[in-house]
Amino acid sequence: MLNSRQLQHLRSLLGAQNVLTEPEDLWVYGHDATAMLRHLPEAVLCPANAHEIAAIIRFANEESLQLVPRGSGTGLSGGSIAYQGCLVLSLLRLNKILEIDRANMVATVEPGVITGQLHQAVEAQGLFYPPDPGSMKICTVGGNVAENAGGLRGLKYGVTRDYVMGLEVVLPEGEVMWTGSKCPKDVAGYDLKQLLVGSEGTLGVITRVLVKLLPKPKGKRTLLAVFPSMEKAAATVAAIIAVPIIPATLEFLDQITLRCVEEYAHIGLPTEAGAILLMESDGHPVVAEEEVQQMAQLARTHGATQVTLAQNEEEAVQLASARRMAFPALARMRPTTVLEDVSVPRSRLVEMVQAVGRIAASSGLMIGTFGHAGDGNLHPTILLDERNSDEVRRMEKAFEEICRAALDLGGTLTGEHGVGLLKRDFLERFTDPAALEMMRRFRETMDPRQVLNPGKMFQARPRREGQLPGHQQQCNGLLEGLRP
Amino acid sequence: MLNSRQLQHLRSLLGAQNVLTEPEDLWVYGHDATAMLRHLPEAVLCPANAHEIAAIIRFANEESLQLVPRGSGTGLSGGSIAYQGCLVLSLLRLNKILEIDRANMVATVEPGVITGQLHQAVEAQGLFYPPDPGSMKICTVGGNVAENAGGLRGLKYGVTRDYVMGLEVVLPEGEVMWTGSKCPKDVAGYDLKQLLVGSEGTLGVITRVLVKLLPKPKGKRTLLAVFPSMEKAAATVAAIIAVPIIPATLEFLDQITLRCVEEYAHIGLPTEAGAILLMESDGHPVVAEEEVQQMAQLARTHGATQVTLAQNEEEAVQLASARRMAFPALARMRPTTVLEDVSVPRSRLVEMVQAVGRIAASSGLMIGTFGHAGDGNLHPTILLDERNSDEVRRMEKAFEEICRAALDLGGTLTGEHGVGLLKRDFLERFTDPAALEMMRRFRETMDPRQVLNPGKMFQARPRREGQLPGHQQQCNGLLEGLRP
Repeated sequence: MLNSRQLQHLRSLLGAQNVLTEPEDLWVYGHDATAMLRHLPEAVLCPANAHEIAAIIRFANEESLQLVPRGSGTGLSGGSIAYQGCLVLSLLRLNKILEIDRANMVATVEPGVITGQLHQAVEAQGLFYPPDPGSMKICTVGGNVAENAGGLRGLKYGVTRDYVMGLEVVLPEGEVMWTGSKCPKDVAGYDLKQLLVGSEGTLGVITRVLVKLLPKPKGKRTLLAVFPSMEKAAATVAAIIAVPIIPATLEFLDQITLRCVEEYAHIGLPTEAGAILLMESDGHPVVAEEEVQQMAQLARTHGATQVTLAQNEEEAVQLASARRMAFPALARMRPTTVLEDVSVPRSRLVEMVQAVGRIAASSGLMIGTFGHAGDGNLHPTILLDERNSDEVRRMEKAFEEICRAALDLGGTLTGEHGVGLLKRDFLERFTDPAALEMMRRFRETMDPRQVLNPGKMFQARPRREGQLPGHQQQCNGLLEGLRP
Repeated sequence: MLNSRQLQHLRSLLGAQNVLTEPEDLWVYGHDATAMLRHLPEAVLCPANAHEIAAIIRFANEESLQLVPRGSGTGLSGGSIAYQGCLVLSLLRLNKILEIDRANMVATVEPGVITGQLHQAVEAQGLFYPPDPGSMKICTVGGNVAENAGGLRGLKYGVTRDYVMGLEVVLPEGEVMWTGSKCPKDVAGYDLKQLLVGSEGTLGVITRVLVKLLPKPKGKRTLLAVFPSMEKAAATVAAIIAVPIIPATLEFLDQITLRCVEEYAHIGLPTEAGAILLMESDGHPVVAEEEVQQMAQLARTHGATQVTLAQNEEEAVQLASARRMAFPALARMRPTTVLEDVSVPRSRLVEMVQAVGRIAASSGLMIGTFGHAGDGNLHPTILLDERNSDEVRRMEKAFEEICRAALDLGGTLTGEHGVGLLKRDFLERFTDPAALEMMRRFRETMDPRQVLNPGKMFQARPRREGQLPGHQQQCNGLLEGLRP
């Protein structure tokens, strides 16, 4: 519990208007985009800069307070939930694009900059920042870095990690650290920024990000193909890669998802189809054209019943809308939408989709699957009503079975949404024990008093010397102990 | 000192023929490619697999032995020197390409595989492994990963780090760990492999590497341009990036270097020229052609006195030979060749080359500079005779001044050669203190008995509990205390 002396100190540090404690404010910060997770913070702190953040963190170390950094709260694994009595540390006031350095093709931004705004700012200068998570219009660059966010362009362009060249971070004991440079080649010491990317706010608070930019692709062609079965769609994916062509986008919707999209948006998708593939090629106009024609031909060869090539940007947006509507179209079917995020090696895509089908059948739950066929990252989406405890039980079983199936196929628990609270139990159970031990040691040595985002990613273990601070809780089942 | 019981145990573990102790063997392993560094190991261990390596490391922990992992010994920062009483742990028997998985565009290799052999193996299947360090015909993939090796294609394709998707590592206490997967998107826990890449054998011994592959570019065009001054060459580089074009290769030689090359090889370079640029564009043939024509035009616009476009592969190899001969041509001028490896942001290239010129003048030493204009990674090469103590003193001063100049320009101490022994002192002095502290904590928590590669990258500090094992040495000056 935050006492009045502590509150007074934080107010004097940040200004009273930047310390939120009213219930209507706390409710806003009590959840992120993850289903079924809510925890009200006791306060929300809105610092203006790294200096204030360092002061907050030092104070938290002295007073055994705990902090959860937060951007726009669009996370899908509960990473910014104020679990375990945390205060929310909002990064939204650090929202400036500090520099676009065209000569070195890099940009420096504060963590609260909206990803889509960065896209627009660099594209206006003929440059390109590829990471494009689904929430890019509202999510922040800092959150993207903390979660190592992916997106639709992952196969060709990689993920957020691949664009981080430098970070300013306030460490868990309050030191401000800079790591990285504008040099594409820099091997001076351990590459700490690479460990910080994707560390989900457990190793430091990001206060500045230096990102790499690319030239903006001059051309783009978009193609939608309809298949009688997921198998034929997957065979097309394999054939495209075998050319080899690495498309900018290679996305799929399964039958359940495309039916929901059609029911929702009436865009003319054939609801009896087994799957659709959205394909995009970008780069030099000659290359984009050549690749998209080859992909269209391969789709036909592999049994596509309908192949539509966008003739202009408007048509491209229309074709892509089916994919972009997948989640909202599924989400409106039932009150609760639990979004999975497993990845498998691309070659195991069909097996994974089949496994999800079997799990859906045995659970009696509706599960629509869509995702990134090119990079093997799937989003099976389980639809239920969280007020129905029987459905919740079946969802939890299905959720775990999906993760196990992905691991059995050489995949991973989470491709781009992170571990957070949602998959903490799985990470602990399914990670190589030596790797988990290494993660724990890094965390313990950097944050001995467990000030930053405690209980996330993996549980703390009792310290060798002295007692564990804070409100240690156990979490056994998937969401057990985490629900409001 | 290795005692006879320990030696006996190691022989029983590996087979007597895999434990080298004869002086003529030890001399071979007493140095790497770094000038002026030699330390004879007491023994060289040649294990066959991760299991044997784990057994050696556990034994080393029990017996307070210290180990330095080593591939082909081509390193340029003393990273594989058996400093501080280390035994050499040779990885050369782990030399199999285990899998080339075309469907997922990845390959799995053992650490002792020669980089050039991996290139050939994947290119035979239409695939491409971009990292191309200068020593690629003899260096190993494991060494490349440990050092995060770069090469000539860094600007467009990145460095070794960008291609590592998974690692099997024997940790400093003997556990075998796997980290990573064949999934391009994988955010399950801290990305440990990213920290291990470039950790120079201080956090683990790499026993298996999963690398990402790309489609092999279909076309390539090569261009050589001669400029009256380095400033005009650099202006051309800036103009190319401003288009924006990201060439596969964008390399330069300064006047001293090109004179040495011409004197060595008589390939027709104009020795009165100020600088030459080697440019390559690869990818779709249409794009490569278009880009190379644009680059040729930009070179002319910016004052190139000679622009030669290779008309076939043979001519391309000939043009590229000037760049490839830079180091051997410089090395033959004097008995000792000290190779620098600083990086600066690309926009500061001219200033850095000018700074090197001033440092050469004030030191009275000959310094030729060549390197990667596209990514700002320069190799000023100091020529001297190490038997002349006055020259050595001047070299050490110049070496440090070059590093300081790079840092003053927003650059880094080492772009691709690593810290090792050579730049340990600089890393400690010039790294953000919070970052250095984080590196030290990671190392201490993973290798509490300092078994792996002690004294490299940064010095160990006394342990809080108990005494430091091993033969702790001090190293104050640049090479002081490190010389044979």
